[in-house]
Amino acid sequence: MQPILINGQWQKSQSSGSFQAENPAAMTALPEQFPISTWADIDAALAAATTAAAQLNKVSPERIAAFLDDYAARIEARADEVAALANQESGLPVKPRLRDVELPRTVNQLRLAAKAAREQSWAAATIDTAANIRSCLAPLGPVWVFGPNNFPLAFNSISGGDFAAAIASGNPVIAKANTSHPGTSRLLGELAFAALQASDLPPATLQLIYRTSHADGERLIRDPRTASLGYTGSRNAGLVLKRAADELGKPVYLELSSVNPVVFLPGALAERGAALVDEYAGSCTMGAGQFCTNPGLFIVLKSPASDEFIAGIVKKFSSATPGTLLTKRVQDSLVESVDVLQKAGAELLCGGTVGGGTGYSFVNTLLQVSASEFVRKPEALQTEAFGNVALCVVADDVEQIIAVMSHLEGNLTGTIYSSTSGADEKLYAELEPLLRAKVGRLLNDKMPTGVAVSTAMNHGGPFPATGHPGFTAVGIPASLRRFAALHCYDNVRAERLPTILQNKNPTGTTWRMIDGVWSTADL
Amino acid sequence: MQPILINGQWQKSQSSGSFQAENPAAMTALPEQFPISTWADIDAALAAATTAAAQLNKVSPERIAAFLDDYAARIEARADEVAALANQESGLPVKPRLRDVELPRTVNQLRLAAKAAREQSWAAATIDTAANIRSCLAPLGPVWVFGPNNFPLAFNSISGGDFAAAIASGNPVIAKANTSHPGTSRLLGELAFAALQASDLPPATLQLIYRTSHADGERLIRDPRTASLGYTGSRNAGLVLKRAADELGKPVYLELSSVNPVVFLPGALAERGAALVDEYAGSCTMGAGQFCTNPGLFIVLKSPASDEFIAGIVKKFSSATPGTLLTKRVQDSLVESVDVLQKAGAELLCGGTVGGGTGYSFVNTLLQVSASEFVRKPEALQTEAFGNVALCVVADDVEQIIAVMSHLEGNLTGTIYSSTSGADEKLYAELEPLLRAKVGRLLNDKMPTGVAVSTAMNHGGPFPATGHPGFTAVGIPASLRRFAALHCYDNVRAERLPTILQNKNPTGTTWRMIDGVWSTADL
Repeated sequence: MQPILINGQWQKSQSSGSFQAENPAAMTALPEQFPISTWADIDAALAAATTAAAQLNKVSPERIAAFLDDYAARIEARADEVAALANQESGLPVKPRLRDVELPRTVNQLRLAAKAAREQSWAAATIDTAANIRSCLAPLGPVWVFGPNNFPLAFNSISGGDFAAAIASGNPVIAKANTSHPGTSRLLGELAFAALQASDLPPATLQLIYRTSHADGERLIRDPRTASLGYTGSRNAGLVLKRAADELGKPVYLELSSVNPVVFLPGALAERGAALVDEYAGSCTMGAGQFCTNPGLFIVLKSPASDEFIAGIVKKFSSATPGTLLTKRVQDSLVESVDVLQKAGAELLCGGTVGGGTGYSFVNTLLQVSASEFVRKPEALQTEAFGNVALCVVADDVEQIIAVMSHLEGNLTGTIYSSTSGADEKLYAELEPLLRAKVGRLLNDKMPTGVAVSTAMNHGGPFPATGHPGFTAVGIPASLRRFAALHCYDNVRAERLPTILQNKNPTGTTWRMIDGVWSTADL
Repeated sequence: MQPILINGQWQKSQSSGSFQAENPAAMTALPEQFPISTWADIDAALAAATTAAAQLNKVSPERIAAFLDDYAARIEARADEVAALANQESGLPVKPRLRDVELPRTVNQLRLAAKAAREQSWAAATIDTAANIRSCLAPLGPVWVFGPNNFPLAFNSISGGDFAAAIASGNPVIAKANTSHPGTSRLLGELAFAALQASDLPPATLQLIYRTSHADGERLIRDPRTASLGYTGSRNAGLVLKRAADELGKPVYLELSSVNPVVFLPGALAERGAALVDEYAGSCTMGAGQFCTNPGLFIVLKSPASDEFIAGIVKKFSSATPGTLLTKRVQDSLVESVDVLQKAGAELLCGGTVGGGTGYSFVNTLLQVSASEFVRKPEALQTEAFGNVALCVVADDVEQIIAVMSHLEGNLTGTIYSSTSGADEKLYAELEPLLRAKVGRLLNDKMPTGVAVSTAMNHGGPFPATGHPGFTAVGIPASLRRFAALHCYDNVRAERLPTILQNKNPTGTTWRMIDGVWSTADL
């Protein structure tokens, strides 16, 4: 049985049982046994994290940054091994996906987090000199990270965006590995721990367990020692954790579900319908559609051009070999979702059955429903089918598109394709405000599947896409601000202020709002 | 019966009954009848606010700012009348409190909100030029404001901090007046509406009702048209609303309760004990202690100096005439709270009974409990006694102070008084991190009752003081950011971007983060 990482020691879990990961391409269990932790493990992790949180408050941002940089370098040094293991557990291709895209993204993210920690501008230090009131964002305390199955590196509980953000903002992290890639998490955990040992950070700055019971998952959120949670996963499981946190007023950040609507306006289809078929089908089937921002729902106005567009997608979908799905659960879930969509009135245009690819897989699937039907059963017809399944909504007129939009739930993204010649401007102006209100990121003429780690990115959106529309999980420094409380100092003596709020700029480059003006100067 | 303000019309309420305000100094009902709205009123307000929200998205910030400035001027022009009416309904003195302190604060707040709306820096526009991704904070939609009883002007639902913040950030407000000062709210509503009519803002930018049933209060939060809520009031009522909002993932902002612990370190008492008696007793009895940041709990180490300090406070409390309480409910609640505290083991040192002042009042009250008793019943002994009641916790040693601190709930403020000669530095260093983690604003050598409208203020704190530790209800521009969603634009064509995200700086003075650097320049 694999050990867990608690308080600076790889140690035997006080487990209630064990589990194995599965190679989804081979549909066979992988040999390693990983523990299902009992409350005893969780309790030990929380106790150690509480101590670490207090210790981290006294650690300089530079030391946290150095750890993150060192960790990134260690991942790069073992890149082939990391990618190979992630491939075994996820079925995602080693190249280009894991080795050349996701791994570089992961280390880039750690380095950007290091830079943000070093620069300290994320803390939005604010000084009112006349009143001698000063404030900044400051760490919350122990943060749990529950990562998703679909990015074994870039969103991994112990190396991904939430991990990097929580550490860079000064919080200890307890990572609960996603149960689909425990081995990858263990290897990353070892690299992280080696970097931690080479640093002088508190030993429980990062800890790793693999699995808990659902009841313990809820209990650990309620535990007073838990300050926050970064969660990406299924809506149902996430809502249980959200409810537990909400009752105690704990700020937690969840990414729950999104169908990422795309509207193809008539001018766009007239102008470049064939190219859009390629673009849409490519985005939908890439990685077997297993992205939070997969464009799983699109809307068109009924016309010969849209008929041709839909037929083109069916052709592309039918001719493309589906990728391997991450787990049997993802495959089962697609069966269930397609069933729900069909029962709600969607018609199957292609696919709809298990298989077609290597290992767990699902035939590329397109369903269609009329806009009038959609607005009758908007909830069922927005069921997220996580994978290579899409739903096309066909409207008879603009009023129907408007009706569909007004029934959309909150989403991470929303996209409008339009003519480049100006033919769609009136319609764009009419639809944009409706879509804008429902999404975190609005795109033009571009598929939403790429989520750049940009200062201006929003990987967030209105509920039920996430739990709060004001925060983003991707994009540095903004993602760091989630795991923070606003700390104000009123009339506090100069020598007692945290470094970032003292008169001297802590780095010479930290942005601080001084009397309403952003500045990197000393006071 | 007084009319309500719905969709730009003062109109008859579809009411289920009526109520009257009471003059708490005279303990007599005031003549005006105000309606208790049924769902029909709420529904009409929500429908109109939804339209207004869409309209406001097309309104320039300058027009919103001009409205706020005009409203402030209209309040000033009728200042004596406003103060006189607020005095009638609250029992708070016309001078200096209402006319010379709270009213100027209110208009100052409106003008600062206007300035923030005009400058637009609150929206934290962020541009990544290389990726052409741009984001900013943007309005949420219809915001309800439920104001508290204790600031009939500065926190009034239709003129206070939440109102100003929600309007300045571009949201329509539906104000539910506090039932203790409906007449003041009506007068302010009339001034606001006159300013609205003089502007070209949508007619439902602000609306006013007076009271709802509890069930409708919860239902209006659940209604899909409600985007957010700014609430200041009792913990129990607030938690019901919070639960309703949480289930639907709506961001709402609540200020619920706070006992605002103050620690007097031995060096401070030795150095200036008599002065601190005056300072503390003054802060506690000012406005009959009816402040969110009233220092209702203090901690001392047992010593002859602390005995003398406590005796001094008892003397001050006993000799001071208590102020009039806002309502009979506040008086009743003090009776209940003191009873809870006594039953939990606190000993009454002075006061404890109704009366002593004009109208509704409560004798200035000090209770005492040992630290060891406190940690046995920390929940009951942190019962908020909203008014002129304080609890003194006496510790035998530093370990007991630490134990008390570790049992503190989240608070708006926490204060440490210490020697100016350096005698308390070691103890300060030991206690500060414990207190820091439990409060939004940490003070030194200053009572927390003043809440400056400062860029760096935090009038917020960990639950149960508020619902999220990262936001503040007071302090501009930060308070505006509560009523906002993060809107990202990815590859959106230049002419379709909101003005604030276009290459040209919208005002020439708006702070925008361009490629990681804060700037007021054009792109």
